[in-house]
Amino acid sequence: MAKILVIHGPNLNLLGKREPQVYGNVSLEEIDRQIQQWASAHAWQVEIHQCNHEGRIVDLIGAAIGGVDGILINPAAYTHTSVAIRDALSAAAIPAVEVHVSNIHSREPFRQHSLTAAACRGQICGFGADSYRLGMEALLRLLAGGAGT
Amino acid sequence: MAKILVIHGPNLNLLGKREPQVYGNVSLEEIDRQIQQWASAHAWQVEIHQCNHEGRIVDLIGAAIGGVDGILINPAAYTHTSVAIRDALSAAAIPAVEVHVSNIHSREPFRQHSLTAAACRGQICGFGADSYRLGMEALLRLLAGGAGT
Amino acid sequence: MAKILVIHGPNLNLLGKREPQVYGNVSLEEIDRQIQQWASAHAWQVEIHQCNHEGRIVDLIGAAIGGVDGILINPAAYTHTSVAIRDALSAAAIPAVEVHVSNIHSREPFRQHSLTAAACRGQICGFGADSYRLGMEALLRLLAGGAGT
Amino acid sequence: MAKILVIHGPNLNLLGKREPQVYGNVSLEEIDRQIQQWASAHAWQVEIHQCNHEGRIVDLIGAAIGGVDGILINPAAYTHTSVAIRDALSAAAIPAVEVHVSNIHSREPFRQHSLTAAACRGQICGFGADSYRLGMEALLRLLAGGAGT
Amino acid sequence: MAKILVIHGPNLNLLGKREPQVYGNVSLEEIDRQIQQWASAHAWQVEIHQCNHEGRIVDLIGAAIGGVDGILINPAAYTHTSVAIRDALSAAAIPAVEVHVSNIHSREPFRQHSLTAAACRGQICGFGADSYRLGMEALLRLLAGGAGT
Amino acid sequence: MAKILVIHGPNLNLLGKREPQVYGNVSLEEIDRQIQQWASAHAWQVEIHQCNHEGRIVDLIGAAIGGVDGILINPAAYTHTSVAIRDALSAAAIPAVEVHVSNIHSREPFRQHSLTAAACRGQICGFGADSYRLGMEALLRLLAGGAGT
Amino acid sequence: MAKILVIHGPNLNLLGKREPQVYGNVSLEEIDRQIQQWASAHAWQVEIHQCNHEGRIVDLIGAAIGGVDGILINPAAYTHTSVAIRDALSAAAIPAVEVHVSNIHSREPFRQHSLTAAACRGQICGFGADSYRLGMEALLRLLAGGAGT
Amino acid sequence: MAKILVIHGPNLNLLGKREPQVYGNVSLEEIDRQIQQWASAHAWQVEIHQCNHEGRIVDLIGAAIGGVDGILINPAAYTHTSVAIRDALSAAAIPAVEVHVSNIHSREPFRQHSLTAAACRGQICGFGADSYRLGMEALLRLLAGGAGT
Amino acid sequence: MAKILVIHGPNLNLLGKREPQVYGNVSLEEIDRQIQQWASAHAWQVEIHQCNHEGRIVDLIGAAIGGVDGILINPAAYTHTSVAIRDALSAAAIPAVEVHVSNIHSREPFRQHSLTAAACRGQICGFGADSYRLGMEALLRLLAGGAGT
Amino acid sequence: MAKILVIHGPNLNLLGKREPQVYGNVSLEEIDRQIQQWASAHAWQVEIHQCNHEGRIVDLIGAAIGGVDGILINPAAYTHTSVAIRDALSAAAIPAVEVHVSNIHSREPFRQHSLTAAACRGQICGFGADSYRLGMEALLRLLAGGAGT
Amino acid sequence: MAKILVIHGPNLNLLGKREPQVYGNVSLEEIDRQIQQWASAHAWQVEIHQCNHEGRIVDLIGAAIGGVDGILINPAAYTHTSVAIRDALSAAAIPAVEVHVSNIHSREPFRQHSLTAAACRGQICGFGADSYRLGMEALLRLLAGGAGT
Amino acid sequence: MAKILVIHGPNLNLLGKREPQVYGNVSLEEIDRQIQQWASAHAWQVEIHQCNHEGRIVDLIGAAIGGVDGILINPAAYTHTSVAIRDALSAAAIPAVEVHVSNIHSREPFRQHSLTAAACRGQICGFGADSYRLGMEALLRLLAGGAGT
Repeated sequence: MAKILVIHGPNLNLLGKREPQVYGNVSLEEIDRQIQQWASAHAWQVEIHQCNHEGRIVDLIGAAIGGVDGILINPAAYTHTSVAIRDALSAAAIPAVEVHVSNIHSREPFRQHSLTAAACRGQICGFGADSYRLGMEALLRLLAGGAGT
Repeated sequence: MAKILVIHGPNLNLLGKREPQVYGNVSLEEIDRQIQQWASAHAWQVEIHQCNHEGRIVDLIGAAIGGVDGILINPAAYTHTSVAIRDALSAAAIPAVEVHVSNIHSREPFRQHSLTAAACRGQICGFGADSYRLGMEALLRLLAGGAGT
Repeated sequence: MAKILVIHGPNLNLLGKREPQVYGNVSLEEIDRQIQQWASAHAWQVEIHQCNHEGRIVDLIGAAIGGVDGILINPAAYTHTSVAIRDALSAAAIPAVEVHVSNIHSREPFRQHSLTAAACRGQICGFGADSYRLGMEALLRLLAGGAGT
Repeated sequence: MAKILVIHGPNLNLLGKREPQVYGNVSLEEIDRQIQQWASAHAWQVEIHQCNHEGRIVDLIGAAIGGVDGILINPAAYTHTSVAIRDALSAAAIPAVEVHVSNIHSREPFRQHSLTAAACRGQICGFGADSYRLGMEALLRLLAGGAGT
Repeated sequence: MAKILVIHGPNLNLLGKREPQVYGNVSLEEIDRQIQQWASAHAWQVEIHQCNHEGRIVDLIGAAIGGVDGILINPAAYTHTSVAIRDALSAAAIPAVEVHVSNIHSREPFRQHSLTAAACRGQICGFGADSYRLGMEALLRLLAGGAGT
Repeated sequence: MAKILVIHGPNLNLLGKREPQVYGNVSLEEIDRQIQQWASAHAWQVEIHQCNHEGRIVDLIGAAIGGVDGILINPAAYTHTSVAIRDALSAAAIPAVEVHVSNIHSREPFRQHSLTAAACRGQICGFGADSYRLGMEALLRLLAGGAGT
Repeated sequence: MAKILVIHGPNLNLLGKREPQVYGNVSLEEIDRQIQQWASAHAWQVEIHQCNHEGRIVDLIGAAIGGVDGILINPAAYTHTSVAIRDALSAAAIPAVEVHVSNIHSREPFRQHSLTAAACRGQICGFGADSYRLGMEALLRLLAGGAGT
Repeated sequence: MAKILVIHGPNLNLLGKREPQVYGNVSLEEIDRQIQQWASAHAWQVEIHQCNHEGRIVDLIGAAIGGVDGILINPAAYTHTSVAIRDALSAAAIPAVEVHVSNIHSREPFRQHSLTAAACRGQICGFGADSYRLGMEALLRLLAGGAGT
Repeated sequence: MAKILVIHGPNLNLLGKREPQVYGNVSLEEIDRQIQQWASAHAWQVEIHQCNHEGRIVDLIGAAIGGVDGILINPAAYTHTSVAIRDALSAAAIPAVEVHVSNIHSREPFRQHSLTAAACRGQICGFGADSYRLGMEALLRLLAGGAGT
Repeated sequence: MAKILVIHGPNLNLLGKREPQVYGNVSLEEIDRQIQQWASAHAWQVEIHQCNHEGRIVDLIGAAIGGVDGILINPAAYTHTSVAIRDALSAAAIPAVEVHVSNIHSREPFRQHSLTAAACRGQICGFGADSYRLGMEALLRLLAGGAGT
Repeated sequence: MAKILVIHGPNLNLLGKREPQVYGNVSLEEIDRQIQQWASAHAWQVEIHQCNHEGRIVDLIGAAIGGVDGILINPAAYTHTSVAIRDALSAAAIPAVEVHVSNIHSREPFRQHSLTAAACRGQICGFGADSYRLGMEALLRLLAGGAGT
Repeated sequence: MAKILVIHGPNLNLLGKREPQVYGNVSLEEIDRQIQQWASAHAWQVEIHQCNHEGRIVDLIGAAIGGVDGILINPAAYTHTSVAIRDALSAAAIPAVEVHVSNIHSREPFRQHSLTAAACRGQICGFGADSYRLGMEALLRLLAGGAGT
């Protein structure tokens, strides 16, 4: 039974409550409930964390080695500044998918580059809460050794 | 019955035949066959084009106004250089999803920035042929007025 | 009887129909009608093309050598990316005037520089459909060997 | 009866006398005479200043508020360096047209960007003394609530 | 009774003890004592934290939503590197004032730009411990709906 | 009895009348009246100038040497372009405080850097007319040899 | 019998007729005649195209896979802007030689970098029409498995 | 008896287990054992921490003031992004040596610059686990007031 | 009898009184006295101005046309920011020599580039008040049609 | 009888012995032998030098004036850093051809720009030892006043 | 018996005599004496050169191939400018260690990047004369096939 | 009796013979003769070298320590690329004057910055052979402890 680690980066605890014109109206609790449902439907085990601390995200990824089959991560603000999370993902070498709620390509210039995505298999952005659903599906296919790659 | 325009940019006709270490082994014909299947399954109509010409892609997007409900586009090399396609997507104002077979974030610096994604709703990259499947799904949800946003 | 080549670049076929807050409400058909009227009034012959293809614009300029006395061009998106159109204008050495419907200086940074204007005699931007009228007038004066220069 | 403020920036008093290969042979006096004629023909009132002082140009624009209907300005060297004139134009919010005698796009790189044009409605460059005539015409249409925009 | 959250960023616990030529001689304890006095004098409630952890600062700002009326923050080193704190301040949408003990404009180039100030109402820098006093006063006026803005 | 020189840079004469969404509703006359009141209350003498001319501001600062105890300056547009004012402030070596009505950190990139602040003791921005009050207070403390530094 | 695809990029149809001080006096027809002669002399088959369209060049390269042994290409203006042609050359993996009539290293800065040469075996520039002859010779040696590499 | 603080930055807990082609095969435990041995041999006391949290590293350095004679630090990913650790090292003013297992000069451009080394006495990189041994020796000499400096 | 225009730029009235470690101890009055002496000795006529206003310097240069044989100018702060003075010098086409009291090459990066020197014959910097003497001598030789050039 | 100076820049003495994957297997001795043969065949005189010293290359070029008809130069590493060799080539004004064994356009960014090629007639790169043969042929044609230019 | 080549770059002959605040008080003779002692102690043979000539350093490295087991190099000023020395080190493929007396990371920006270190195994900087001792030790371990890597 | 070291950098042996439109018609021999005359007239001893080798220039400056009172240097091409000569001048700490025959500020961008001038007392450029005369005079005054500084 595959185990998935889901990491929500800084400020995502405020999802759905703040700046809905940028991040939409769905709360993190609702997203987490859906993730649990999708996981159950596919007989996956999921472990979900929301962390405002870069170091804690590094801890979680490091601790996942050997016990986790895939990582779904929204590094939020750390996407653009964290070499440490990039290094953790590279070191862990667990298939990872980066997701973003907003379309980073239509925001401020400093949000248009991702330091962390280079250490993931792929990235999905701009679909609101659906970015998570699509990310879970992408991860499922990667873990199943999907014919697509 | 919703109509989807699918545009494959330059050199994608060679997909699956060339540089499989970068772009995978699945051919464009196979991807198109799958897109047709997914579309049928959802009772969508799809129109698929592979174009090496920037101007032809601009033509297609302009012509889609009024007759197409969503656009799935892999601008390939034009992702990084075409203001014209960006403008066409902005002008058309049809919900659009950008997909890439490879993970643009782990390639040469000039491939890490997308001029065109800013005029789309979102972007999906790095999942090989699955990027198209995920893109179709994302588009479906957008057209259904998905709760996710 | 002087002959003027008028070239409308990519997406200008959508003028007046899309993004009126940026490009105004006048349609390309209306602009072309006015150009024809102004030309008749001055006993000029005009040939008008709207092209989404960079290469087609290069074709038109190259073909104009020897048969055309002046060029009025709105290169639109290609203004910022096309060395090929710049080279065509330089090679043709026909007096050319660049026009833009919007004020490129108050838009995104990548729209504030023109690669093509350096190969024209001058540039006019920001006056909506009137940019064309002003451009025609400027060209008329240039061809008349206007005292202004 | 509409009132137009015409501002000639630094060194334009030397027009027609110096560097004719760049700026042409028409003197500023001749241009001013033509401006007066065009204005009379359209029943406009014009007030013309040539100023080498950035601060004086800011004074003039500020003083124009409430008493002037349109501004025709050739900021010359200050085009590329003056945030103060840009701010004056933004604050005044009087329709303004920027003109240049030479084609700034084919000169040194530091002359290819305009700080001030972003606070104008549009810009006209490269047509020698005719740039002023075209600018007057553009302003006339703007003030007439021209259909072009 | 208004509640103010005061956040001292990394290394500010060393204030007054280290590098007095840059940061002055007043200790953080003294500053906090003064803040408490000023607050009492204005019948405000203050909660003061010194945090070396970027994530902890994000936690504090997120937790302040709904319970805090104003934020006084010296992000110290994170001023120049933290998108996460900027995002927290934007999401919280609580009036915030950024203060710095030293004049960041006369230090190394990398200290002359603030990522976080854009998500605050204003910034005060260069007045030593007085920057805090001025920041408190600025916040007081903002919360009082000061006529100044 | 301490003497303070207050300098309002270009376009500040329009304060409160223009672009209130950026600069607020308080007029310069009102600000000057308040400055006079604060000064009287502290038994300071103030001399206030509003200048659109960079050179005039340099004149004023140079003339202040020996007769002025502190400078409160809002260089406005010259903040970002004037080496001359920076040099005047450095040469005068009179304690100076730079203030801005708007928050320069959340405006266009070219407004986010101050050339002149490096020659002041500190900078205050973003508090509307209150920026002046805070600046006066900061200056008062600096002149009193405030314990804060 | 080896087959060589020769591609002349945009505006090269004007060779020898325009800007001889930059591009020399030899016409494209003369160059093509010489290429045919050299090819006959070496018992090669050549197919020659002049294309102003970037997309058409991509078409030609893609179509050459399996039927062409070597490519001689002068991408002209597209040298500096076309990721699509670079990708086509990489995908085709046919030995290719890039040639330029002028010395790109002594022209404008934007002409000094080649995006396309990285996907060729080598580049030859600056020798006028002789660049083609040298390119043919270089290609001949490459195809012969020349000892030089 | 001198006391040395040893800090291993983010992801170094994975040393020897992950990406051995970059970081070598020696585990952190082995390195720590060696550090302890070297320290004993020189009658030093060592305190060793591995921290993934930037803030925790700042805490440790701040707490070391007054109780630690030298710092040996491998800031790992934070080398390139942390102004906070740089400031902590500057404030603490304890002789510090920066070490890196890999040669940062032959890796990605963003790894070739160190923000933190400027606040250390020197830097050693590229020697695998030996970088630590060399760093200890360098520190020993610095503390002994080595004749070398 | 040759006539020389000497222009001292902003803040040079403070020479010798302020920042002697940068600009030396000689006053402007002393320099002007020496200039007058050198001039008398060579039977030159000199006209000396110290101006803090960029526009006034432009005025002076423009007015010099026809009546002045050489210009000795220390543009001070305007060296680095004034396109207007550069244009005035180019338009006037009077032999000009730029001098600086300090060595601009060993100061802040923004002082190491001169916009104005390109419109002069040469530049002399770093010799304190002697820069003026050397500049006078250089100008003398230029006007004498010196064999050196 | 024409005389050709051949200059091999730094490290080319190691050609064929080191890094064959970059520079090929042919030794410099073999290349020099071939150059001598080609030269004899065309009744040219050649003088060949391999120099690791930039200054020595400048010496050789300077000494060639008046005695040498053409220069074939592979500046190797100095291609990217030597203004001195560029100046020597410009001063000598002897027709020169730059060659490179590897394709500089597909190597590190700092190798993709040539400072020296701007002072040559043309450049040839990427053909291994054949680059020299092609360069000799190009030079032969240049000296023969080839019709190609 | 291993042989080590030691290269001291430009100006290091002045070590200990000049700018001691930057480079310390130990003379090069003293360093060389120590290197000889360390070498004897480990039964190594050393050959030491101080060279101000970039080309001579290239010569030495090229000549070392086949006869030298390790290189200890302080390229001094050439660290930041020499592609030629970098290429020599890459071609020689002899284990090399780069050392610097001063901490290059706390000096001028142009000294913070090393072109040459990428072709070495590692770099040591900032420890005065001890940098050499540490470099020798690092090299010894590399040659012994140290377990650390 | 003061001793002056005069250093002419690369290619200056060609002065007066090559590119007179840039460097004038006076030969180096003539300049050297004049330098000798000026020196005799002031009872100075001069030693003059023309060197194409950067390392040789470093040698000369290092050897001058203790025996030379002033340096007059035209580093020519090395002005823009040599950290080694800059370091030699800094280490020698002998008063030095940099001269250039041409006006570097009106040439290519890469010639507008001097790396070496920062280690000299001042720089003189643009006066042809007279730059040397002026440089000698400047040096004379510096050595005489001229009142100007």
